[in-house]
Amino acid sequence: MTGDPPPATDDPAPGPPAGDSTDSAPAPRGRRRGRPPRTESAGTRDRILAAAREEFSARGYEKTSVRGIAKAAGVDSALVHHYFGTKEQVFEAAIEVAFAPALNAPHAVADGPVEGVGERLTRFVLGVWDNPTTRAPLLAILRSAVNNETAAAVFRRLVAAQLLRRVAAQLDLPDAELRAELAAAQIVGTAMMRYVIKLEPLASADLEQIIARVAPVVQGHLTAP
Amino acid sequence: MTGDPPPATDDPAPGPPAGDSTDSAPAPRGRRRGRPPRTESAGTRDRILAAAREEFSARGYEKTSVRGIAKAAGVDSALVHHYFGTKEQVFEAAIEVAFAPALNAPHAVADGPVEGVGERLTRFVLGVWDNPTTRAPLLAILRSAVNNETAAAVFRRLVAAQLLRRVAAQLDLPDAELRAELAAAQIVGTAMMRYVIKLEPLASADLEQIIARVAPVVQGHLTAP
Repeated sequence: MTGDPPPATDDPAPGPPAGDSTDSAPAPRGRRRGRPPRTESAGTRDRILAAAREEFSARGYEKTSVRGIAKAAGVDSALVHHYFGTKEQVFEAAIEVAFAPALNAPHAVADGPVEGVGERLTRFVLGVWDNPTTRAPLLAILRSAVNNETAAAVFRRLVAAQLLRRVAAQLDLPDAELRAELAAAQIVGTAMMRYVIKLEPLASADLEQIIARVAPVVQGHLTAP
Repeated sequence: MTGDPPPATDDPAPGPPAGDSTDSAPAPRGRRRGRPPRTESAGTRDRILAAAREEFSARGYEKTSVRGIAKAAGVDSALVHHYFGTKEQVFEAAIEVAFAPALNAPHAVADGPVEGVGERLTRFVLGVWDNPTTRAPLLAILRSAVNNETAAAVFRRLVAAQLLRRVAAQLDLPDAELRAELAAAQIVGTAMMRYVIKLEPLASADLEQIIARVAPVVQGHLTAP
């Protein structure tokens, strides 16, 4: 238990989604149990979240246990349950933090002219994948979601509700959600082939070259008539 | 041991890739051990392959064992090793059979005018994904490849060498391989979002609607200037 908690879990998105704003303070989504926290130490909470990300990354959703997370964080399992609830809820809280950079994508879409939305979104998301530090948690989420229905549901909820719906809302087109999903399919498919399967020449190609190829396609999905 | 082996493992592609054509008969890639088979029963071999597909589908690469495959096929582990070799080689043989429909994709590309290549390829691959019978083994391969480096290498080898390089060879463009990979990224990404993550509205959309959206993008990747 450190006395100097880092502020790493602050919500990076200026506008939290509706339904989470009943408190004046940003409420951590993971803590859903009724009783108030007795030892509200941001340091401990962050340490558990960091351990959870490590465990889910290394083992995937199915093989990770609350007990293993607690052990890695140096706390009792009961404290993990106290802060987050079930394993699914720990997972959701951990990937929500991991997703924080990606959740800025709607802002990347909003800032600037609509003709550049494809490039901004592509550059943003592939940039997150290209950075090993931000790639690791995304890879862990993808692995878990592909292998486990519970993890897929969490992924679906976060990606659909928090990311794609917000991108779609800014398009103002009747089929905006399908457009956003097909654009996401191109970007996620590219990330998977490049960073997970590592197909060549895609894996070694210059990122700018890939963005130059993918961005017009994403633009087309989002805004073409 | 049935006396009437089904011809399910015949090579569906008329032209096997270079390096596999030293025998006049189509040589099963999986059998690489030196000694000749004593009990060359296509029925037994097919039964082991079917069991292997089932096991890899249900458990993924890491959790599947040669022993488990042997048990599911009702044979001794030694027989599995005899026919196929290591677990990696059983996996490769199993996914090669599972990939058989997808390996017809280069022909789908070749047959017809180049302006329709995007639609033919998209229709073909999404059609394989849309059929639950042919989807199951692809899903198993994807799951294994995302989770295990050995399985990813097998996937890479098969997809890159047998599928994408053959698509690329028919394009006759200097960057044909990168084009084929980005086209594949759109198709595989769409399949993943629709059939694995099950994002809505994409998951419930009519297949023809999806093909109509994705095909022009694939066409653009493959042939646009």
